[in-house]
Amino acid sequence: MTFSLYDAVVPSNIQILGAIDALLDKAEKFCGEHDRAASDMIDARLAPDMLPFGYQVKSCAAHSMGGIEGAQAGQFFPDMKPWPTDFDGLHLAIRSAIESLKGLDREAVDALLDADTQFVFGETRLPFTGANFLLSFSQPNFYFHATTAYAILRVQGVKIGKRDFLGIPRVKA
Amino acid sequence: MTFSLYDAVVPSNIQILGAIDALLDKAEKFCGEHDRAASDMIDARLAPDMLPFGYQVKSCAAHSMGGIEGAQAGQFFPDMKPWPTDFDGLHLAIRSAIESLKGLDREAVDALLDADTQFVFGETRLPFTGANFLLSFSQPNFYFHATTAYAILRVQGVKIGKRDFLGIPRVKA
Repeated sequence: MTFSLYDAVVPSNIQILGAIDALLDKAEKFCGEHDRAASDMIDARLAPDMLPFGYQVKSCAAHSMGGIEGAQAGQFFPDMKPWPTDFDGLHLAIRSAIESLKGLDREAVDALLDADTQFVFGETRLPFTGANFLLSFSQPNFYFHATTAYAILRVQGVKIGKRDFLGIPRVKA
Repeated sequence: MTFSLYDAVVPSNIQILGAIDALLDKAEKFCGEHDRAASDMIDARLAPDMLPFGYQVKSCAAHSMGGIEGAQAGQFFPDMKPWPTDFDGLHLAIRSAIESLKGLDREAVDALLDADTQFVFGETRLPFTGANFLLSFSQPNFYFHATTAYAILRVQGVKIGKRDFLGIPRVKA
């Protein structure tokens, strides 16, 4: 097997996004069974000064496909758009990211290895290579928001375990 | 720049473990300032049926250097050893993992790419290539436990933000 930047980033993004998509189904089912409004779950937070479930889910798309698009454009801006406020919208954000990731050309991702990529936030400009942007910024952010989304559901009482977070690891056929 | 399995795994492990090491200092300082026993923080959980802070920290070592050692041995067993119950012990676990990761030979890690690696838990045997074990099992677990450790401190009132989780991203010199 050869190995490249694509292998380091894209398959795991797809794996974990698939797990988040399934978690959304469990969360929605839980709301139905416990007579809780969807908005109650989507607005749930781990702490009062942390952002809610809906933001965490949206950020999984922003730091997977969004990170790659930033590297391709040479600049990544934090996604300040509002997050979806219903489960259909959250599913759409996740599934769109999965489809876009699946459609990526391997060579196009590998070509980002040394590409200049700036993280831009207000006056802040952080210069990265494409690889270091994806691996030392996007990827930790991606897993941070995916885990926080999981943790919010867990704290809210949804019956899930770490397997629901991991999704389908890439075992040998 | 060339790119290999080593680049996909080791630098980010070191980055995030360094962040966790600094979080331990903040947690210990917080305990001192708020007259809380260290054990109270180390036993803190996000939910009653989740594992505590001490376990989350230990698991960051188990799924970084521990995962690589498993791939090298051909078998990875979940780490069932008790976790340290004081901050010194937790620092030691994290710093030992960092030192071991820094000492790894790049070629030795890259040689794990296609190595047979089994995940072994009771009667369960999951077969992986080394790369897919590290990227689709170890790495998501690593970030899961690192984020959960962060979240526990955050919920307990330690004044931290996502930068404390990210540590030092690998910007251009």
